[in-house]
Amino acid sequence: MADSVTRIMVAVNESSMKGYPHPSISSKGAFEWTVEKIIHNNVSAFNLLFLHVQVPDEDGFDDMDSIYASPEDFKNLHQRERVRGIHLLEYFVNRCHEIGVVCQAWIMQGDPKEVICHEVQRLRPDILVVGSRGLGPFQKVFVGTVSEFCWKHAECPVITIKRKPDETPQDPVDD
Amino acid sequence: MADSVTRIMVAVNESSMKGYPHPSISSKGAFEWTVEKIIHNNVSAFNLLFLHVQVPDEDGFDDMDSIYASPEDFKNLHQRERVRGIHLLEYFVNRCHEIGVVCQAWIMQGDPKEVICHEVQRLRPDILVVGSRGLGPFQKVFVGTVSEFCWKHAECPVITIKRKPDETPQDPVDD
Repeated sequence: MADSVTRIMVAVNESSMKGYPHPSISSKGAFEWTVEKIIHNNVSAFNLLFLHVQVPDEDGFDDMDSIYASPEDFKNLHQRERVRGIHLLEYFVNRCHEIGVVCQAWIMQGDPKEVICHEVQRLRPDILVVGSRGLGPFQKVFVGTVSEFCWKHAECPVITIKRKPDETPQDPVDD
Repeated sequence: MADSVTRIMVAVNESSMKGYPHPSISSKGAFEWTVEKIIHNNVSAFNLLFLHVQVPDEDGFDDMDSIYASPEDFKNLHQRERVRGIHLLEYFVNRCHEIGVVCQAWIMQGDPKEVICHEVQRLRPDILVVGSRGLGPFQKVFVGTVSEFCWKHAECPVITIKRKPDETPQDPVDD
């Protein structure tokens, strides 16, 4: 049997309800599922790669109350957003440290589904794990699904982990 | 970390080119991938469940040269088909025995995609692994894909393993 390490890429995002630095229910679920069902205690056989994709806030919606007086202010805006993303990744890196799994984590900007597939192509993980809100076909039309796109286009096997029924908020679009 | 055993259901079928008892390229690939990338040497943490679904041969196409003279002959036909299926499963059970993974294997009759999803509902595995020929959208229209149906409908995380490019026969519909 091969002794090579299995590299699992896990796409993670922030909670749509609680915001940074809280991970979304489905990211957290996908990570814990991977540890419990695949890694078990065989920690040296796996590496985890955490990718967080930030969607550029083109409308500046999240910063409506800020005042911009110089180019420096905009630089600070990007910087702040990046720092928030780093704190999200901190959650997963800390969990890996507790468990004893080697990991790395990084942030990219862009359309999550495209960036994830591009990073799979670049880094060639053995498995991509994506959490999913498990929305019905009607809700999918409006919110899109990263998991379905990745399942079709990522150049490696993809595992989609749906949220547990008891973790699903009243409005399933929340996460 | 949980110590419970992860139950992986692997859907397997016979080679469309070589017939029974040879496993299809994608079934064999999906199984070997699971062993190499997920199980590693941690054999006691996993159970494998091999499901082979036989499509009832309603046209009797495979037995065109046989002569049927009594109800007994038809019974023999079903019996022979079942025995062929058992020899396919033997391949996977033998491999598990070599590796040291606990497994079970069984045969069902019906539409593979529906039977697989039904068996997932009945047996509640942690993961379903399905091989895929990785056909393009044009070929999919004609041959259908079990993997896509299972990904959408099976009540557990699904991993689809596409064939390696170097194992793909000239006509990708062959397997």
